[in-house]
Amino acid sequence: MGRGHVGSRAAPLSPEQIVRLEDDAVVVLDQRLLPEHEIERRCVSAAEVADAIATLAVRGAPAIGIAAAYGLALAATRGEDVAAAHATLAASRPTAVNLRWALDEMLSAPTPERARAIHEAEVERCRRMGEHAAGLCAEAVSARARAARAARAARAARARQASPLRVLTHCNAGGLATGGYGSAVGAIRSAFEQGLVERVWVDETRPLLQGARLTAYELEALGIPHTVVVDGAAAFLMATGEVDIVITGADRIARNGDTANKIGTYGLAVLAAHHEIPFVVVAPTSTLDPAAATGAQIPIEERDGAEITARFPARNPAFDVTPAALITAIVTERGVHRTPFASSLPAPAGAP
Amino acid sequence: MGRGHVGSRAAPLSPEQIVRLEDDAVVVLDQRLLPEHEIERRCVSAAEVADAIATLAVRGAPAIGIAAAYGLALAATRGEDVAAAHATLAASRPTAVNLRWALDEMLSAPTPERARAIHEAEVERCRRMGEHAAGLCAEAVSARARAARAARAARAARARQASPLRVLTHCNAGGLATGGYGSAVGAIRSAFEQGLVERVWVDETRPLLQGARLTAYELEALGIPHTVVVDGAAAFLMATGEVDIVITGADRIARNGDTANKIGTYGLAVLAAHHEIPFVVVAPTSTLDPAAATGAQIPIEERDGAEITARFPARNPAFDVTPAALITAIVTERGVHRTPFASSLPAPAGAP
Repeated sequence: MGRGHVGSRAAPLSPEQIVRLEDDAVVVLDQRLLPEHEIERRCVSAAEVADAIATLAVRGAPAIGIAAAYGLALAATRGEDVAAAHATLAASRPTAVNLRWALDEMLSAPTPERARAIHEAEVERCRRMGEHAAGLCAEAVSARARAARAARAARAARARQASPLRVLTHCNAGGLATGGYGSAVGAIRSAFEQGLVERVWVDETRPLLQGARLTAYELEALGIPHTVVVDGAAAFLMATGEVDIVITGADRIARNGDTANKIGTYGLAVLAAHHEIPFVVVAPTSTLDPAAATGAQIPIEERDGAEITARFPARNPAFDVTPAALITAIVTERGVHRTPFASSLPAPAGAP
Repeated sequence: MGRGHVGSRAAPLSPEQIVRLEDDAVVVLDQRLLPEHEIERRCVSAAEVADAIATLAVRGAPAIGIAAAYGLALAATRGEDVAAAHATLAASRPTAVNLRWALDEMLSAPTPERARAIHEAEVERCRRMGEHAAGLCAEAVSARARAARAARAARAARARQASPLRVLTHCNAGGLATGGYGSAVGAIRSAFEQGLVERVWVDETRPLLQGARLTAYELEALGIPHTVVVDGAAAFLMATGEVDIVITGADRIARNGDTANKIGTYGLAVLAAHHEIPFVVVAPTSTLDPAAATGAQIPIEERDGAEITARFPARNPAFDVTPAALITAIVTERGVHRTPFASSLPAPAGAP
């Protein structure tokens, strides 16, 4: 893969460019260096894969599950103690349940083939989620048109009545986060291909700027119009009527629909409800945690405050929990699920 | 003033260290370089003062008014065309009304003495605002104690019932922003001295990090416990019950109480209302705009997107407007004002 400064990407990254298993290593694209540098990192043991996950060289709930699955296959190939490798990989990050899910899926047969099947299945889930989410976007366009007619809007508003959506997204729930295609970005991509998306507002997503670095980079490669904003500008854009729908990914979803995602997501959900804007979560069933009845059971990772400032005391919770009551719909590969989520959400993904 | 890396400041900056008029220059502490470097910038003409304001070497609504007043006095001393200097300075930034107010106050007698009187009056307003705001904080502590009793809280909660407040603030409304003492930070300072503040959550305030760079630096010098968080973490802290009150400054307040302040403030106000947390604005009467009936008449500065990212398209509104309905109280040097603000707000400040 090329090194050094990258201009505009001509095409989206393939699943194999994001994370893959070779004979003697798990190879990940180092997401900390994007968009300036496309540099791969070779992890030659389960411990090195765990380190790549803990240090965010590979990040995103489904992607760290895939990387961990490859890590366990590598450990088995190398003759490492598989149980110890499982424990090391499982402990690398606490919040995303996909990590544990993928590792557990691997335990009965920690082979390269099984890990690759998990990777392929996750990407395929994203594609199906995209189709379901595009349907939801089409509904949102229609609802907007009805609202405009009902309000006997001015000529300019009527002219916009069937116009595509201005989507706001947070963090990166793209191909990079999911091993290919993307969950929230996959939904946007699928909807865009059907003419349903006009523009994407990309929250820069402090402290690590996954929006400004990764989502913008992926949308550029996909040719989807995008504009980066600071996280604090989302409310302004909603108040000025420039956001039609909010679409995010998820790191863990409890049985009642409470959803953990990147810090800042919960605030967006409150703001969306205040402005009567649909708030949609897109995530594969591998993100569902049957062991968590509600969001109160989801552990929230607190990271080093130095990611924010090294000069003053800082606190750095990496995730927050959005209560189900603020979520308009959760989209999985099985379809569009609405409240009450306890009965509408499907079972977690089974083995591939 | 010292140069190079600054350790912890031993004492708050004096008004003269923040901005002052010398015989041949307006001298400002370059706030873009803080907290790493305390370096002064000498502006030897009104145009150079206007440039220092436009480029944010000096920033904060009252502080740019004071700098502009000094700039007009400098122009008169140098024999510049005062009307032209007034126009240049007035055009340097659009949103903060203090800029125009201070310049208009200077027009009848653009002397150094008058400019210094404006500076002193603004700092004195901050001191009085601090006293009024401390009273408001004392009420908030009492209200919390009553709520805890009414809820028959657990022992731990009861033990906290008269405990001081965890305050969240946004951007920098400190001495740096106001020419000394501070508006929101002055309120926190005054309340802290009365034992009413336990800790301050400091929103880092993207894109220019006035919270993480300037407010943390001022609170450190004041010896007030502070913790920097990303802007997106405010909702998380409110949901976990770790914010008792939100206190911010303002750049312009309309007659009905609608308040323009740093981008992100409006979202905080929505979040505070959702969590039933008091949202308080602290600003001198020089921030009141009698010409604006509502926030719709306040011009919002859109700055260069490169302040956010130079790599992708970005949009950078510098301010937003918080509707009066979301504001618990506005504190000026005249007292604590509550809804309906159209009748409770005092007249704008007169000449010193």
